[in-house]
Amino acid sequence: MQDFTFHNPTRLELGTGKEAAIGQHLAEHGARKVLLVHGSDRIKADGLYDTVTRSLAAHGIGFVAFGGIVSNPVISSVREAIAVARREQVDAVLAVGGGSVLDSVKAIAAGVPHEGDVWELFIGQAPLTRALPIFAVLTLAATGSEMNGGAVVTNEATKEKFAIQSPLLHPRVSVVSPALMRTVSRDYLVYSAADVIAHCIEGYFTATVQPHLQSRLVESLIATVIETTGTLLDDPADDAARAEFAWAATLALNGTVYAGTGGYGYPNHMIEHALSALFNVPHGAGLSVVMPAWMTWYHGRNPAQFERFARHVFGVEGAEAGIAALRAWFDRIGTPTRLGQLGITEADLPAILDNLQGNARWFGLAETYTPEALGEILTLAL
Amino acid sequence: MQDFTFHNPTRLELGTGKEAAIGQHLAEHGARKVLLVHGSDRIKADGLYDTVTRSLAAHGIGFVAFGGIVSNPVISSVREAIAVARREQVDAVLAVGGGSVLDSVKAIAAGVPHEGDVWELFIGQAPLTRALPIFAVLTLAATGSEMNGGAVVTNEATKEKFAIQSPLLHPRVSVVSPALMRTVSRDYLVYSAADVIAHCIEGYFTATVQPHLQSRLVESLIATVIETTGTLLDDPADDAARAEFAWAATLALNGTVYAGTGGYGYPNHMIEHALSALFNVPHGAGLSVVMPAWMTWYHGRNPAQFERFARHVFGVEGAEAGIAALRAWFDRIGTPTRLGQLGITEADLPAILDNLQGNARWFGLAETYTPEALGEILTLAL
Repeated sequence: MQDFTFHNPTRLELGTGKEAAIGQHLAEHGARKVLLVHGSDRIKADGLYDTVTRSLAAHGIGFVAFGGIVSNPVISSVREAIAVARREQVDAVLAVGGGSVLDSVKAIAAGVPHEGDVWELFIGQAPLTRALPIFAVLTLAATGSEMNGGAVVTNEATKEKFAIQSPLLHPRVSVVSPALMRTVSRDYLVYSAADVIAHCIEGYFTATVQPHLQSRLVESLIATVIETTGTLLDDPADDAARAEFAWAATLALNGTVYAGTGGYGYPNHMIEHALSALFNVPHGAGLSVVMPAWMTWYHGRNPAQFERFARHVFGVEGAEAGIAALRAWFDRIGTPTRLGQLGITEADLPAILDNLQGNARWFGLAETYTPEALGEILTLAL
Repeated sequence: MQDFTFHNPTRLELGTGKEAAIGQHLAEHGARKVLLVHGSDRIKADGLYDTVTRSLAAHGIGFVAFGGIVSNPVISSVREAIAVARREQVDAVLAVGGGSVLDSVKAIAAGVPHEGDVWELFIGQAPLTRALPIFAVLTLAATGSEMNGGAVVTNEATKEKFAIQSPLLHPRVSVVSPALMRTVSRDYLVYSAADVIAHCIEGYFTATVQPHLQSRLVESLIATVIETTGTLLDDPADDAARAEFAWAATLALNGTVYAGTGGYGYPNHMIEHALSALFNVPHGAGLSVVMPAWMTWYHGRNPAQFERFARHVFGVEGAEAGIAALRAWFDRIGTPTRLGQLGITEADLPAILDNLQGNARWFGLAETYTPEALGEILTLAL
């Protein structure tokens, strides 16, 4: 185990109906006027928008709504929202939606007090030194963004999907309300499962320092995702399973399972970001395609951990059997495992490889993930 | 899974040598003068006292030392320290020691701004509404106090060992430095292992709502305690194992594994508190005696979970085999499993049962733990 700092001050409020208290949380943090960011207008149809705005009004908090955030959120929307936030002089930002809305809100919170263009914060041209306070009502559990300081946004002009990370971007309060997630589509449920598993395995397989405790915690999360996804596919209204899935998603990326590990990378995310930047595929769907291919390519570099994965997660023996079991499970729940299922063919590989060169540098993985290596992995994913 | 709030703002700094930065942490929180609380003078002999006070001086922070905190800390020392803290007008409290020092510091932090006697806060005669900011340099990993808002103190006059609990008592920063723990005695290492396992199993076995995820996390912690205790008994200087043990101890009681569970109690702690209040036995040693007896008495009330424990933790089948395996492991590492090993005989049972009536009410467990039931459990522990 290597040295670490664990500091996660986000207040997580998990429970059905807790969204009705969001105004109180904002008031306790002294907010007076908030930018309410959301995606489609579905939250207006299903009553969530009313619940949230009534709660704000009850605590004397003004708001300006900014809708239209799309999955794989884009920097142009973030820029528009920053302009609105400045004009309206909001003092806080509230996400009502899933990971894309929350990631956008983090970029907005950092961008409002930044004097230059917000993308400078993503490419390291300017430090992130200030941010508006962030609040969230989560409608989809997957990204873990509700309890960490990271955010991923795509620059549509440059086709770059990059991240920012700062303690300043931890939400002050995140509400996770299982009943709000009943309407998550079957597709997005299984993509979310793949996303959480990706968050779990990146460190688990690639870390050069990986204590047994942290491996056990990761296996606990994966087992829970597998179990609760099955339950939810049978009964989307099982709020207890939804809550357990959501808590696993949060724990996967709130620092708990990465504490004390070291030397890890995010190669699956690096590769997937090229797919969603170029083809706008759902992040989790891209990950479920990349993971089995990457694992097949990588397992010889860390055979003991892959054998452990096979045994502890799927009760099978041998690295390849474990990989096959994960792919079979992805197939069974219906998240794609081949590039063809995303409409991507061999003819697209050169463009993906071209995009990946920037990603590999950005992720600090260019040494291992040469164009040749990436070509091998993508070919395994065909 | 039931609704929960997870909010743990403590900054945990785990790493050898991090105690040298404690002055900086205090300065960042605006402290000017601190009460430095410790136990024996061993920290002066081994250099830790110098390291800490040099760090305070380097950041312009004055201090007053208050030593002599004993294991099973007593309210009389807390009262003395409160008087010193008031007279010296400190604005923060720093624990340099193990769980007893940290629990004392929490009581001091709550007691300084409280107008009445500090024990009123323990028996519910006054609400805990303010506290000085708390910092810690931990020299023994066991109680989890470094990352939660609880503290247990004994009133020697009334022979009551009770607790306080408040978000105000979360340490702002806790430094956990594995190398500082190399000098922990063999006895205190194994008592600590028993303490952490007790924190794990209280909820695991007694909760009426216990999601599989939380059971998996608990089993991960217990497996880690068993593994790393073995490593440390062979090599007390294995800092990596010490760090992993310490992180497991923190996670056992920092809210992570209890989130979403419900209806649990702390019967083993309730019983042990009588033993340490009356006979001043080390808390972990008392717990390793109580646990196998309590489990033997209790397992029929939750057979599936006890069978799960046997299978997942020890790889054996059947509740009783699991309990026997835990007792055998306690025997092997050398923490007591019989009251006789603590010098307590059948003749002492009436006094223990008498003390336990107050505890049972205080812990909210009087309905299940009648004098008859407690007598049965204690008899099983003889």
